[in-house]
Amino acid sequence: MSLLPPQIQKTIEEFSKLPGIGMKSAERLTFHLLRSSKASPETLGKALADLRTQLNYCKHCQMVTLQEECAICADTSRDHATILVVENPLDVIAFERSGFKGVYHVLHGVLSPIDGMGPEQLKLRELIERCKKGEVKEVIVATNPDIEGEATASYIQRQLSDAVPSITRLAHGLPMGADIEFADQVTLKEAVEGRRKL
Amino acid sequence: MSLLPPQIQKTIEEFSKLPGIGMKSAERLTFHLLRSSKASPETLGKALADLRTQLNYCKHCQMVTLQEECAICADTSRDHATILVVENPLDVIAFERSGFKGVYHVLHGVLSPIDGMGPEQLKLRELIERCKKGEVKEVIVATNPDIEGEATASYIQRQLSDAVPSITRLAHGLPMGADIEFADQVTLKEAVEGRRKL
Repeated sequence: MSLLPPQIQKTIEEFSKLPGIGMKSAERLTFHLLRSSKASPETLGKALADLRTQLNYCKHCQMVTLQEECAICADTSRDHATILVVENPLDVIAFERSGFKGVYHVLHGVLSPIDGMGPEQLKLRELIERCKKGEVKEVIVATNPDIEGEATASYIQRQLSDAVPSITRLAHGLPMGADIEFADQVTLKEAVEGRRKL
Repeated sequence: MSLLPPQIQKTIEEFSKLPGIGMKSAERLTFHLLRSSKASPETLGKALADLRTQLNYCKHCQMVTLQEECAICADTSRDHATILVVENPLDVIAFERSGFKGVYHVLHGVLSPIDGMGPEQLKLRELIERCKKGEVKEVIVATNPDIEGEATASYIQRQLSDAVPSITRLAHGLPMGADIEFADQVTLKEAVEGRRKL
């Protein structure tokens, strides 16, 4: 690879550190940026250099924001006694689209010993402190329905059981538009167990 | 999406302009960079900002280089009468690994009217000028075996037929390690037509 100028090699190397981008994709992205009329390496470079500048985490919910407090936590018309706990900021945006009217808490990850993510790496201490103030009526744990997400949900349940009257988990079942024929057995079992009266 | 700070939105937008990266992947990459211990937005940002600085194209073969002339063209021990024409700089690296001892010409693309790539957008004029000096004995056209690559090869053949004694195309056939059962019909037809004496 020494035939390529060092700045090209460096860009390929940095791209290949990203999830889902192997060496070949990194090469393709780098040469695309060199030639493309739509994307430019300078614009993307500038955006990345600015990414962490002025970036704050909301003092209540840990959502990314430019202020000390995010727009959701600052909104007094929302239900501040119901906290929906999510893994990352994109989950907040997904729930906002769904019309949720409580507030959030962003963990910035899930428990995953294999990736070096223990309770101290997550924003769990902040969640426990928020709940200990005694104003929280319900904590809805909305981590993903996978091994790490389930482990994190149990951990939160154990930590908060004394401080919060109600700790709930999102319903499991068939997603809208799903085809029962292709649904996995665990989802079908959960869908039957969680059935509701019509 | 207005819940996300502008620098995050900008980074997502710029990532999503890259080939093979949709909105969801762009979001995932951006938040990965915010948290990752391995990759950092500043390092990738710096690499991208530097990508085009001091970057030159070899005055003979148009390969990316830091000098006026690339290491391959400057090497007098190579066969400068045989030019292998490729689509992009990564192809040069692939052929170098294969042990090719002639020189190259990088087109920086292929003819593709749908993407706005005509003969003037490629480094074709430079190839024709190189060949008109009369020192070139063979031009091997090594564009990819697809529609655009074949069209570009025919175009080059027509343009150079008077200037170069021999214009050839890479052999088509089965790649090493292939399984005949799964080979497509065009490849098998070409493999039979191009058969060689044992």
